[in-house]
Amino acid sequence: MTLANKNTQRLSSQELPNRLAQARGDQELDLLITNIQLLDVITGEIYPTCIAIGGEHIVGVGLEYADSKTRRTFDGQGAFVTPGFIDGHLHIESSMMSPFEFERATLPLGTTTAICDPHEITNVTGANGFEWFLRCAELTRQNLFVQMSSCVPALPGFETNGSDFTLDEMVKLKDHPAVLGLAEMMNFPGVINANTEVLSKIEAFDDLNLDGHAPLLRGKALNAYLLAGIQNCHETVTLEEGREKLQKGMGLIIREGSVAKNLKTLAPLVNDFSSPQCLLCTDDRNPFEIAHEGHINFLIKELINHHGVAVHVAYRLATYSAAKHFGLKRLGLVAPGKKADLVILKDLKSVDIQDVLIGGQFVSEIDLKSESANNLQLSQPPMMNTIKREAMKAADFGYPTQAGLYNVIEIVPNEIITKHITTFFDGKNFAQDDVLFMANIERYGKNLKPGLGFVKGMGLTSGALASSVAHDSHNIMVIGTNTEDMAVAVNEIIAMGGGFVVANQGEVKARVELPIAGLLSLKSADEIKSGIENLKTEFKKLGVVLEEPFIQMAFLALPVIPALKLTDKGLVDVTRFEFIELAVR
Amino acid sequence: MTLANKNTQRLSSQELPNRLAQARGDQELDLLITNIQLLDVITGEIYPTCIAIGGEHIVGVGLEYADSKTRRTFDGQGAFVTPGFIDGHLHIESSMMSPFEFERATLPLGTTTAICDPHEITNVTGANGFEWFLRCAELTRQNLFVQMSSCVPALPGFETNGSDFTLDEMVKLKDHPAVLGLAEMMNFPGVINANTEVLSKIEAFDDLNLDGHAPLLRGKALNAYLLAGIQNCHETVTLEEGREKLQKGMGLIIREGSVAKNLKTLAPLVNDFSSPQCLLCTDDRNPFEIAHEGHINFLIKELINHHGVAVHVAYRLATYSAAKHFGLKRLGLVAPGKKADLVILKDLKSVDIQDVLIGGQFVSEIDLKSESANNLQLSQPPMMNTIKREAMKAADFGYPTQAGLYNVIEIVPNEIITKHITTFFDGKNFAQDDVLFMANIERYGKNLKPGLGFVKGMGLTSGALASSVAHDSHNIMVIGTNTEDMAVAVNEIIAMGGGFVVANQGEVKARVELPIAGLLSLKSADEIKSGIENLKTEFKKLGVVLEEPFIQMAFLALPVIPALKLTDKGLVDVTRFEFIELAVR
Repeated sequence: MTLANKNTQRLSSQELPNRLAQARGDQELDLLITNIQLLDVITGEIYPTCIAIGGEHIVGVGLEYADSKTRRTFDGQGAFVTPGFIDGHLHIESSMMSPFEFERATLPLGTTTAICDPHEITNVTGANGFEWFLRCAELTRQNLFVQMSSCVPALPGFETNGSDFTLDEMVKLKDHPAVLGLAEMMNFPGVINANTEVLSKIEAFDDLNLDGHAPLLRGKALNAYLLAGIQNCHETVTLEEGREKLQKGMGLIIREGSVAKNLKTLAPLVNDFSSPQCLLCTDDRNPFEIAHEGHINFLIKELINHHGVAVHVAYRLATYSAAKHFGLKRLGLVAPGKKADLVILKDLKSVDIQDVLIGGQFVSEIDLKSESANNLQLSQPPMMNTIKREAMKAADFGYPTQAGLYNVIEIVPNEIITKHITTFFDGKNFAQDDVLFMANIERYGKNLKPGLGFVKGMGLTSGALASSVAHDSHNIMVIGTNTEDMAVAVNEIIAMGGGFVVANQGEVKARVELPIAGLLSLKSADEIKSGIENLKTEFKKLGVVLEEPFIQMAFLALPVIPALKLTDKGLVDVTRFEFIELAVR
Repeated sequence: MTLANKNTQRLSSQELPNRLAQARGDQELDLLITNIQLLDVITGEIYPTCIAIGGEHIVGVGLEYADSKTRRTFDGQGAFVTPGFIDGHLHIESSMMSPFEFERATLPLGTTTAICDPHEITNVTGANGFEWFLRCAELTRQNLFVQMSSCVPALPGFETNGSDFTLDEMVKLKDHPAVLGLAEMMNFPGVINANTEVLSKIEAFDDLNLDGHAPLLRGKALNAYLLAGIQNCHETVTLEEGREKLQKGMGLIIREGSVAKNLKTLAPLVNDFSSPQCLLCTDDRNPFEIAHEGHINFLIKELINHHGVAVHVAYRLATYSAAKHFGLKRLGLVAPGKKADLVILKDLKSVDIQDVLIGGQFVSEIDLKSESANNLQLSQPPMMNTIKREAMKAADFGYPTQAGLYNVIEIVPNEIITKHITTFFDGKNFAQDDVLFMANIERYGKNLKPGLGFVKGMGLTSGALASSVAHDSHNIMVIGTNTEDMAVAVNEIIAMGGGFVVANQGEVKARVELPIAGLLSLKSADEIKSGIENLKTEFKKLGVVLEEPFIQMAFLALPVIPALKLTDKGLVDVTRFEFIELAVR
């Protein structure tokens, strides 16, 4: 199977003659949208037109359809229309929602296409969880593409995960119509240094898309990475890095997640001319921010209103540029033959969405709530308990008692990179403010000794935060001012089979259950959101200064993003890809 | 086989580790180009850089390679570099050259990629001629892609051609690595009206590219044509038509051939934002203009210097836009992993080419003359005589002798569309100036009665011009002031097995032989050019006012371009796709 045979790429030959008759005006339309202003992402112009829809597709665009026979007419009353938005790269797991609740939350925000990488659940459950995402993609109305998780585990040998995802397994699933290509190839050293296994993966998916992941990569190493065929990066942190990636032919996927926020930095690179090479993505966005800020619609709004990007350019990034980049022939344009995925807006600048159409249907008329519940059941999510760990006592952590200079991970607010600093620790107290105990606790039944670290920048003054979301192996992460509360928090995670916990003075203060792989909730977007709000209230009481401590904490475990990270096996110096000890030698 | 497996799309996995080592700086480069200014067709900027080449590919771009170990260094001394140029649609047959002489003529002009449709030779010889083009594509250094001729004959039932090209034959050849898709689908009425055979062709090639051809098509009909998946058009004649095609998502391939010249009309549609959707093509360009004006380089020069298009935009159309449009992943950019097809220029605005690289080799160092001769032999061109017609006498034409009102084809200079006018003819003379006798004479052994017409706008005052190049069935076209000279000219065409003839007062004044299918010469580009110059001298003596009467005459036979055309079976009203009589009824 090739890119041409993937979902949304073809209009069936059985259907085509009828659609042609509708386009010609010889057959009644299914839906005619009149009296709208189209934002044309090819020419950049805005003009009045009509949109003629047959089945799931646009059969014609133009005022020539104004008087067509149609089953239904929608009078836009002067509203604006754009193509549906495409999220170029995300992990739905970061929303803590099932793909169906994710759809329910983001489809009304205009995200009609999501290109996801389910490597979180795959790290926990192996092909089992990946295949669940493929089943979900068969059920959603949103165009859900599932990139083939390329690096499970993220860094072999450096962490314990639930299951590997082998090339054999990947190749078996490659032909699924939701698989658009290889997901973010995080092992850029493997690519650059011609690691045989890594190159085999690239070769196996070279006929589809090859997504990249190359934070801070520059110069000759970046050239090598691109030479192998990697086509994009969503991990660009600095302006100069972004410029170099564009110059070297890389698709610049500009990310604004809940933690990693790159819009402001990279927006100066976006203009009329560079726009076809720039895309948007959310990567990791939590339900709180999806509810309060939005999804891709929020990125468009920010670009226009705060980062000086022209309206037609901002919308292009989320539509045409993304569709072109991934070879999605029938998405990203309001044009004949394209899927009728449309956003109807009262105002373009403020991205004030009135309604959304997916495959020719008004989202406001779809009962997404019932569909989500039904689809969740139909999809048969993997429901086994994945938190296999014996309960812990404070003493089990085993922090050093000798005074000395120690390595510390410093959090960079709103970034997933960290700084590597050192501090003096006398066995009880730290010489610097706001340095805390951190541990990464293996949860796949091996009951290994915890990986220990120190972390600065959280602001916590009492208690502990624990989580079973810790990229990408998703062992249990815990940060605390004391090991007693850390044990309480970790034990609550174990007891409920995964989730988030805030504990203080020996008590659990707030928690969110994530029973699917310790990553996803079975609840609705609204319920998850209020759970998160409750967590926020509690961790703020404990002095936390970060807006998203759980998401930020989750990335402290990811050993493919510089500079210093903590896995269940210990501290990883990501600039050298080697373990270092907690104490500075 | 998919688009991903076509020529130029992959860097072999055997080769990749070595190329990666070169990119990293761990292995000697094959060629290092230093001290050049890159025109970056992604950002639009011009900046100094180095280009590191390994084998046929660019392994790295950047000043970081300035001091690299390399087998050879080329000091650009401040010259400019752009990606090699891509001709988005052409019939090499119109150059009268073999693909090897075409390469010899155009590669030094920067055309490193040509996407051709050999439907001329296929109309004459069937799959036989098409397969020769595939063999040629295996031998050229120029990236020669061969689109699958979709409409052979152009309009079934309306003309006699040498051989049909069936869907079965097409499907058998589809997997050849030079076939990028379906060539111009000229039968737009067939597409729009859901003709089963036409839709079968589209369905069979829907996983590759689907090239369009839709002169003057607008409104609902254009919507239907696009709905079927047709992705581009190179037949746009008016500004408003071009705007509508862009708005409807069509790739606008802007053509400047020897006759059909659309640059000036369509250039106002091209800007920074629309540029990714606009391409360039030559379609039909004769050796005289290739030699005197140039090829795609000429189109770029014209856009910049006479049509107000910015330098970075003009070069983008010929490079990045074309590569993106056709899904050519390793062409169209100067970037790591792309094929080392480069144009080195002394000046960007005047497109002053200093040298060209194809697959990492300097074209100036390649003996294209010997290669062309060798390759022609290796390729085994179809050499049978294809002009199967008995000699004619003046009386055989059989023009009407009754006085009356007659239909006349009026030539539109520099366009391949014609006007349909009428004139009074008294059986000997015409009431209007410059109306001539024209005939289209079947040449495939059936010895049918000639198709007869009258034509205005040639300027011929004495003698006759005849040709075996007459789109797309390539019967013998002749235009003359009298039937005696017409017979002389036609008989010379028959005697030499095809070509061009100028005759006057019973004598052949000039001729060019085209022994391959009556379309192509066995001679060198230079020899063909001087043959054409000789023809020009002679037809100008006879009063011809057109710059390219033979090319313009060739299109008078093409019954898929409005408004009135002449096939061997008679006059075709192309606005209704029906035969009409010479006399107005």
